[in-house]
Amino acid sequence: MVNQNEQSGGVEWRVNLPDETSKVLTTERIWLHEFIMGFFRKIWSFIQKALKIGRNDPRKLIHCLKVGVALSFVSLFYYMRPLYEGVGGNAMWAVLTVVVVFEYTVGATLYKCVNRASGTFLAGALGVGVHWIANQSGQRFEPIILQSSVFILASAATFSRFIPSIKARFDYGALIFILTFSLVSVSGYRVEKLFELAHHRLSTIAIGTSICIIISMLICPVWAGNELHNLIKNNMEKLADSLDGCVANYFKNDANANNTKSGLGYRCVLSSKVTEESLANFARWEPAHGGFSFGHPWKEYLKVGASLRSSAYCIEALDSIINSDSKSSDILKKHFSKFCVELSSKSSAVLKELAVITNTMTKSSKIDFIVEEMNNAAQELQNAMKSLSKQPIASTVTKLGGSDAGLDIVPLVEIVPLVTVSSLLIEIAARTENIAKAVNGLADIAEFRVESGEKSKKSQNPQVIIQISQKTMETSQ
Amino acid sequence: MVNQNEQSGGVEWRVNLPDETSKVLTTERIWLHEFIMGFFRKIWSFIQKALKIGRNDPRKLIHCLKVGVALSFVSLFYYMRPLYEGVGGNAMWAVLTVVVVFEYTVGATLYKCVNRASGTFLAGALGVGVHWIANQSGQRFEPIILQSSVFILASAATFSRFIPSIKARFDYGALIFILTFSLVSVSGYRVEKLFELAHHRLSTIAIGTSICIIISMLICPVWAGNELHNLIKNNMEKLADSLDGCVANYFKNDANANNTKSGLGYRCVLSSKVTEESLANFARWEPAHGGFSFGHPWKEYLKVGASLRSSAYCIEALDSIINSDSKSSDILKKHFSKFCVELSSKSSAVLKELAVITNTMTKSSKIDFIVEEMNNAAQELQNAMKSLSKQPIASTVTKLGGSDAGLDIVPLVEIVPLVTVSSLLIEIAARTENIAKAVNGLADIAEFRVESGEKSKKSQNPQVIIQISQKTMETSQ
Repeated sequence: MVNQNEQSGGVEWRVNLPDETSKVLTTERIWLHEFIMGFFRKIWSFIQKALKIGRNDPRKLIHCLKVGVALSFVSLFYYMRPLYEGVGGNAMWAVLTVVVVFEYTVGATLYKCVNRASGTFLAGALGVGVHWIANQSGQRFEPIILQSSVFILASAATFSRFIPSIKARFDYGALIFILTFSLVSVSGYRVEKLFELAHHRLSTIAIGTSICIIISMLICPVWAGNELHNLIKNNMEKLADSLDGCVANYFKNDANANNTKSGLGYRCVLSSKVTEESLANFARWEPAHGGFSFGHPWKEYLKVGASLRSSAYCIEALDSIINSDSKSSDILKKHFSKFCVELSSKSSAVLKELAVITNTMTKSSKIDFIVEEMNNAAQELQNAMKSLSKQPIASTVTKLGGSDAGLDIVPLVEIVPLVTVSSLLIEIAARTENIAKAVNGLADIAEFRVESGEKSKKSQNPQVIIQISQKTMETSQ
Repeated sequence: MVNQNEQSGGVEWRVNLPDETSKVLTTERIWLHEFIMGFFRKIWSFIQKALKIGRNDPRKLIHCLKVGVALSFVSLFYYMRPLYEGVGGNAMWAVLTVVVVFEYTVGATLYKCVNRASGTFLAGALGVGVHWIANQSGQRFEPIILQSSVFILASAATFSRFIPSIKARFDYGALIFILTFSLVSVSGYRVEKLFELAHHRLSTIAIGTSICIIISMLICPVWAGNELHNLIKNNMEKLADSLDGCVANYFKNDANANNTKSGLGYRCVLSSKVTEESLANFARWEPAHGGFSFGHPWKEYLKVGASLRSSAYCIEALDSIINSDSKSSDILKKHFSKFCVELSSKSSAVLKELAVITNTMTKSSKIDFIVEEMNNAAQELQNAMKSLSKQPIASTVTKLGGSDAGLDIVPLVEIVPLVTVSSLLIEIAARTENIAKAVNGLADIAEFRVESGEKSKKSQNPQVIIQISQKTMETSQ
């Protein structure tokens, strides 16, 4: 027995021993107190983390409620007598199906439903066939035939899960195939009511899957296709912000926390490959929704994603060069600043326009024009570097910083980071053009809407002018 | 009925119609022939793909056979009468467990086994408790209490799967918890033999999991920890080869297919994050194996992996700069070639030595020395760039290419790629040092063996000399 006493404001723990003495447990008390407080502190931080997740994405909360609703629906088969008579004790399979099949996105749920149904059907049919053959070949060979068929088919199906094309589409189906085939051919040896078993299993799975599909599609559906679409769009915006942030950071010498923070968006892009691929895999199971038809070219989104990532790699290198200690000559920096900021802002303008195109699913008449502007900015930056070299570096500097006549030579070391930043920016511009090409490919195949005719005509003119002016520039050089 | 005739060497398809006329099916025949051939061609290419996978990694084939063996073992419970009497029709759960739980690596199998067992136990206990409470509160409230408990607990458990720390360790357990709790509390309403159900389920799961664990650990085990270890080691080697390949490609102007191929290894490193994380998650469930104890610091491997990836990003940028069209002045290239190749070979030597350290799990006495050499090479490359700027670029060139007196000025544009390559190489060297730090951290925490004393003493000397000589270099500048 443990007693709690209060003495002079303090709390004491006493254990009453069998010989009627009692012991004060001060150290134990402290330990217990610490333990309980630590426990509650952990739980509290856990709850806060959970609340944060719920607040950031309420759809996750809704998903949880949807799972609850689906399970409640399925358990009705048990509670309501007429339904129970129909399906019997096998309603268990319906519960099992709902739990295993219900996923966050509609696409994933459909993928699992189709795989589960077809895997079960195929394995059930094969199992019944093998069982019939085994039955015909006498009691002695029956277990051998069944056993070896389980061994061979389970091994083969397991191996098929290693093949990428099957893994992407039918991984779960192969698992269910092994499961059902083993169950049917093994339990068939005893149960004797094989057809009934197969029929019950199929009908309960049908009940489970249809409940899942209906609930996941009707109550606040989360479409994998839509998620992929938004992910790609957001990644474009993140890259644009990162690029602006990095370059602004470098040339303005403002080490603002805000700038640095907005400059880190590219990190999400670096590691988004797996998410993109699984979303694209699930999206192709989804029916038409929003602006997307069935058979929307989700694979094209993966190409866009890959080109975004290749741009992000470059921005990562740029970010680290910018954050390294090496200093650039301030005068040259000022001179180059104009061109670099121009180029990066044009690149990020292209990215933002591409985000708008992807988001609205409307071909933009502006995009060619902006890409052209970006290329011109890249050309100007290269020209600026060329013009620097027309005269020995020393005199260039004195020209630029006229008042600073004492300064004769800018050490090449001080140009190095600037040159590196410039050539990385040019490389990023080239990769941004690749992104634009990938988005154009997507727009063509997915048949994005075209903006109204007048607008597109207007935009044709400046582009032609720019192209001509660029040609004259090139010939004059 | 379909007849096959041979006439003058050709084959004809005839359909005998009910009115005893017959029709020659030449176009259909061609179509059928095409269809069958296409079908077999597809199957053939599929088989070849499968064979290639099997040849590349025979352990995958062995895994498939292991699954077959485990399933055969479990089905023995059905075929052998005494065993069958013991477990009864519930042996189905053992089959189900084996199919679902058996994974490629031991760690993944253990993770699933522990999660399945603990999830089932926890949910079973809770289910029995809730069922008892519901039973006490009268027939009217029973279904309401059961239904709402399923709703609340299923929603809560589903939500917990969104929390990263739980997702990493107990995702499968949460799924099994929902499954078992729903089954127990729903079917308990009818079956009445609740304890027996729970007992059977637990014992069959115990049988299934123990078969899986024994087979996966005894027959050619694939340890997740070992896989992670090898992945990290191989990634280091791939980066070293890529770096060597890229730089050799650039400075030797040999566009050999071999070089290009070996230069692409870094691409695997770029996208290995998810594999590394899942392997590390599984590895912590594994008992001691090979040189790894239970509780080996697998998280440190993730840090090494992250630093390897950050290096790979830089190599990606380097690769694209090298493959871009822009030309460098040949004379300067020759001048810089020495320093760049030196630096990249030192960097890749560091990477290779780190791979050896990781592989042998032995602290190397050489590594500090090689890192120092790499830093010196980086310093020399920077010095080379500094010395270039001491005099106007034009005269530097005439000095270098003495015979080429007519050439006055090297356009800065031609230095740009060279400068970019150099500063990327310097950045890569800095990141390689980070990798070395991460590996050192791993070596300290995982208590790697130390090389024999004499060797490490020998290596101390050159390092000290180098450090002194570097200091004198720095003061003399």
